[in-house]
Amino acid sequence: MMQRPPAAPGMPIDAIDTPALVLDLDAFEANLDHMASLAAAAGVRLRPHAKTHKSPVVANLQIARGAVGQCVQKVGEAEILVWGGVRDILVSNEVVSPAKLARLAALAKIAHVAVCADHGQGVDAIAAAACDAGVRLPVLVEISVGSMRCGLPPGPDAVVLARRIAASPHLSFGGLQAYHGRAQHQRSVEERTASIASAAELTGRMVEDLRQAGLGCPIVGGAGTGTFALEAASGVFNELQVGSYVFMDADYGRNHPAPPFKQALFVLSSVMSIPRPDTAVVDAGLKALATDSGPPLVWLREGISYVSASDEHGKLSLEPEARPLKLDEKVMIVPGHCDPTVDRYDWYVGVRGSRVECLWPVAARGAMS
Amino acid sequence: MMQRPPAAPGMPIDAIDTPALVLDLDAFEANLDHMASLAAAAGVRLRPHAKTHKSPVVANLQIARGAVGQCVQKVGEAEILVWGGVRDILVSNEVVSPAKLARLAALAKIAHVAVCADHGQGVDAIAAAACDAGVRLPVLVEISVGSMRCGLPPGPDAVVLARRIAASPHLSFGGLQAYHGRAQHQRSVEERTASIASAAELTGRMVEDLRQAGLGCPIVGGAGTGTFALEAASGVFNELQVGSYVFMDADYGRNHPAPPFKQALFVLSSVMSIPRPDTAVVDAGLKALATDSGPPLVWLREGISYVSASDEHGKLSLEPEARPLKLDEKVMIVPGHCDPTVDRYDWYVGVRGSRVECLWPVAARGAMS
Repeated sequence: MMQRPPAAPGMPIDAIDTPALVLDLDAFEANLDHMASLAAAAGVRLRPHAKTHKSPVVANLQIARGAVGQCVQKVGEAEILVWGGVRDILVSNEVVSPAKLARLAALAKIAHVAVCADHGQGVDAIAAAACDAGVRLPVLVEISVGSMRCGLPPGPDAVVLARRIAASPHLSFGGLQAYHGRAQHQRSVEERTASIASAAELTGRMVEDLRQAGLGCPIVGGAGTGTFALEAASGVFNELQVGSYVFMDADYGRNHPAPPFKQALFVLSSVMSIPRPDTAVVDAGLKALATDSGPPLVWLREGISYVSASDEHGKLSLEPEARPLKLDEKVMIVPGHCDPTVDRYDWYVGVRGSRVECLWPVAARGAMS
Repeated sequence: MMQRPPAAPGMPIDAIDTPALVLDLDAFEANLDHMASLAAAAGVRLRPHAKTHKSPVVANLQIARGAVGQCVQKVGEAEILVWGGVRDILVSNEVVSPAKLARLAALAKIAHVAVCADHGQGVDAIAAAACDAGVRLPVLVEISVGSMRCGLPPGPDAVVLARRIAASPHLSFGGLQAYHGRAQHQRSVEERTASIASAAELTGRMVEDLRQAGLGCPIVGGAGTGTFALEAASGVFNELQVGSYVFMDADYGRNHPAPPFKQALFVLSSVMSIPRPDTAVVDAGLKALATDSGPPLVWLREGISYVSASDEHGKLSLEPEARPLKLDEKVMIVPGHCDPTVDRYDWYVGVRGSRVECLWPVAARGAMS
């Protein structure tokens, strides 16, 4: 069941029911604008990742600022976006199950939909689904450029796979997927620069190998919020798949330097217990905040830290000089990791200044399949 | 938006769309029966915790086996359970916001609803909401017996708070909430025994202090799946608030000895990439599996481990002697921590033998407020 909206437009922020996923609209819009201008200045296309925001509303705001479409990781996310008006989707991930591919091929009747592969069996499954549906699907070859997750090693096997795609009457070769996930959160600019230099070199050589095989790459895609400027400047990548920049989170904030975006996403919580003067407990714990990438941060309250989470409780520690918290007081928390935090909520509460301006559904919340 | 059901009754397990939350009904029913018989033999009431299962269906199966009602942590969970036919609910947690308390008081018109407090301001807020709604709410005093989260220290302040509750014409004193959360996952039986011996001694003394103040404790509640036998045998507790026993998880499995229940809950995933012979990637990552309490386990596949999760990917490591995985093969995964894993899904897929028997909504999924 979808949860009731925790607020209504016009309310003061203090009247929002907690925990709630709050979007600072001024910061959010500044982030949208800033990334759009950076991509335009670098001469690369922007295809932001909807795995972060899970929302056709956000996708359409990105597209209105020049993004060519959206990336997703799951067919279920692609469905929600297409049904919400997005016309160009890249599933930046392998899809190998015939049932999921049938859903993807059905979407291709009403939108431009591309998908990735890293194995011949996957290519054949995509071709079979496209054939059944009477569509032609662009397929990108995913190459592994440093993250050791999915993807073929760059080299001759990847050329063979690209040829297999190009040879199918039901497919077209869509280019390369070359995302270096691990590099996004490397803390120093030196590490990130080295990682993306290596990824770009591998990818560039792959593009050249494919060109010599007679295969052009419509998309050479990758990059995330931690490294996008490096891919954009590489001369190799033509699409940026940045996601987190729209919201930011505590983990990206720990990069040196932090990405040039404002913190726009918060979980609004309430103090439910003050068991000791140095401790307060808020109503946002493990179910309300992703804790996989380090602890959340308390926003704009000096000397107060979020120190531990249990299922429904977050424990705050107050240093002696911190201004004390009151029972039922609202506390804004910066999620440690924005993507999986967003995925637990049914609603964004958009705020501007001290008031609620809008409610947007997290329409692809839980779209895992 | 609620996600589509990933299966339909009658299907073979292999046809379930992934990732999916799968319940082995034989194991689940055995767990329900076993806990009911253990509580009955110990002469204590069972009030299982719905924060684990989030489902009126599961709640009603527990109640049909003798449970007196349900515990919840959130008003939103109480609403879903009462709307689903549960007649007796304890919010085993502080609720201090007037808006939430108004919702709780409204429920008290159609069900027996109790709540906890650890502060006079909280008691006054509950009394005001009860007065407004024209109901009388039982309120338990939460005491801190080892977990250092919410709750008053046992002693005279707790007696004062209980008197304040009893003195209100809109409230009744409901007893003591004395849950030792930290003890549940202490690995050795010696540690758990020592923790609960201490908790029981503190709680027993508190019951006696209240008796001398003329206040009886209708409920003396606590216990979890890791320690319930100790509370049941203590002679102090009269209600067990066990949650995870219905499902079990990898983290409880690491206790020595593990609680006497069967693993009933799984996330069914599919292999989406086999980048190297020693590695497979499944479609269940951070968004599909809670990783806060250690890694998930691969079920019944020797030599295969779930080694790391990213948002939508789970990386499996295969030892040389492991039977290889195939692309699109289904893999059953035991969640590291059941409660927050369940909370990410809209549907339980109930299976018996090799077939899907039922689909149940995770009706209170996301009910955080």
